[in-house]
Amino acid sequence: MSEAKLILVCNDDGITAPGIRSLIKVARDLGDVVVVAPDKPQSAMGHAITINSTLRVQKMVVDGQTEYACSGTPVDCIKLAVNKILPRKPDLLISGINHGSNASINVIYSGTMSAAMEGALEKIPSIGFSLTNHSIDANFEASEKVARSIIKNALLHPMPAGVCLNVNIPDVSIDLIKGIKVCRQAEAIWQEEFDERKDPTGRTYYWLTGEFKNLDSGTDTDIWALENNYVSIVPCQFDITAHQHLNFFNDWQSF
Amino acid sequence: MSEAKLILVCNDDGITAPGIRSLIKVARDLGDVVVVAPDKPQSAMGHAITINSTLRVQKMVVDGQTEYACSGTPVDCIKLAVNKILPRKPDLLISGINHGSNASINVIYSGTMSAAMEGALEKIPSIGFSLTNHSIDANFEASEKVARSIIKNALLHPMPAGVCLNVNIPDVSIDLIKGIKVCRQAEAIWQEEFDERKDPTGRTYYWLTGEFKNLDSGTDTDIWALENNYVSIVPCQFDITAHQHLNFFNDWQSF
Repeated sequence: MSEAKLILVCNDDGITAPGIRSLIKVARDLGDVVVVAPDKPQSAMGHAITINSTLRVQKMVVDGQTEYACSGTPVDCIKLAVNKILPRKPDLLISGINHGSNASINVIYSGTMSAAMEGALEKIPSIGFSLTNHSIDANFEASEKVARSIIKNALLHPMPAGVCLNVNIPDVSIDLIKGIKVCRQAEAIWQEEFDERKDPTGRTYYWLTGEFKNLDSGTDTDIWALENNYVSIVPCQFDITAHQHLNFFNDWQSF
Repeated sequence: MSEAKLILVCNDDGITAPGIRSLIKVARDLGDVVVVAPDKPQSAMGHAITINSTLRVQKMVVDGQTEYACSGTPVDCIKLAVNKILPRKPDLLISGINHGSNASINVIYSGTMSAAMEGALEKIPSIGFSLTNHSIDANFEASEKVARSIIKNALLHPMPAGVCLNVNIPDVSIDLIKGIKVCRQAEAIWQEEFDERKDPTGRTYYWLTGEFKNLDSGTDTDIWALENNYVSIVPCQFDITAHQHLNFFNDWQSF
């Protein structure tokens, strides 16, 4: 009799978000689940960690499920889970389901994917799931089916150490999803606009807004896959060395 | 007569930190400087951006130098600078000088380097500088000399688009620095420990602490360079696709 798999669940939209509720539901069918997630929305927190203030953790049981709401960022949640909360290294870390795409350059800002990347750094097989719909009442039905299949695969097949998966799911019903594409991260950028306003005392403040611009015409990218109703899977690792440019800077020797 | 170079200066330790004061001093000798930096410490904020609250910017003039203190993260500062504050795209973005190493895996948590990376995404030549000493009263004398030389190089030689430099400087006097090494990011990890305490009401809280563990025996890494009193330069780019593992996941097709 094989031991049940230990699955750690996190997200960045906060522990009450519908997306993580969907992911918990799926995970509970597949293993022993522990949820450690932010106690409030922590979207776009990237790989931030809390070093200048303290962290709190609130344990609770929801529908028989043990959950920990943490005052910190998604990456704080993973560090706390691994070092203080879990009885052993989990067999799988899943993060999400994020409300909104984390394809392409979104991955750099994403707390959901940073949680998965932190897992990868800890050599835990880790997957971030995102649905390309920001809405609080997005429909996660198809996403649950996709997540279930991918989690089963991840529990069956050992993943390369240090690698996590960035899974993005198009916002269509399951019968319109054509399949899964393993992709590279598309080159894209957010073209920012700041919405400039005056507060009641006349002082200026700003809201960050912007528009996503795909700069990549490749058909092997996550953006292409999503635009064509495929689920995109990008295997990710954190070595940002621009290896092909190491020689370029070799003549910058003197000072 | 060529136009003066426009240099944007940012950091993550906050606009009053000694490290950014050193960098501003150096930059003012080399071009027209605009400072846009956080109004308080924002260390370890990674690539976080502010989307759920508003941003404020306070303009001020310090010793004839125009500076903007921003309520947001280092990456917010760059976005605001590029989109709202600067008259044109800067010729160079420099971030730092950070109080503490950003070599190896530190780069993933670093606000200083995230500001530089955001510049690279905007196709601005960008450099993050860090001194391997966390102390508020660290000695930046050698770092200023190193930064001056590297900034001059960057203003003379166009850098590859989309690439930023992660420069780390050993905490020794200039005569002990052996030179510059162009390196790859060492594989390393933070081994966390949480310092568990009780507040005056008896409730538990945590401080994140930890120890840096180099897992990489290579002599071509930034950690090796720093341990041997070289300045390390790692050219960085943000494509975290694990290209070598794309095929591995190709059989995860069904759901």
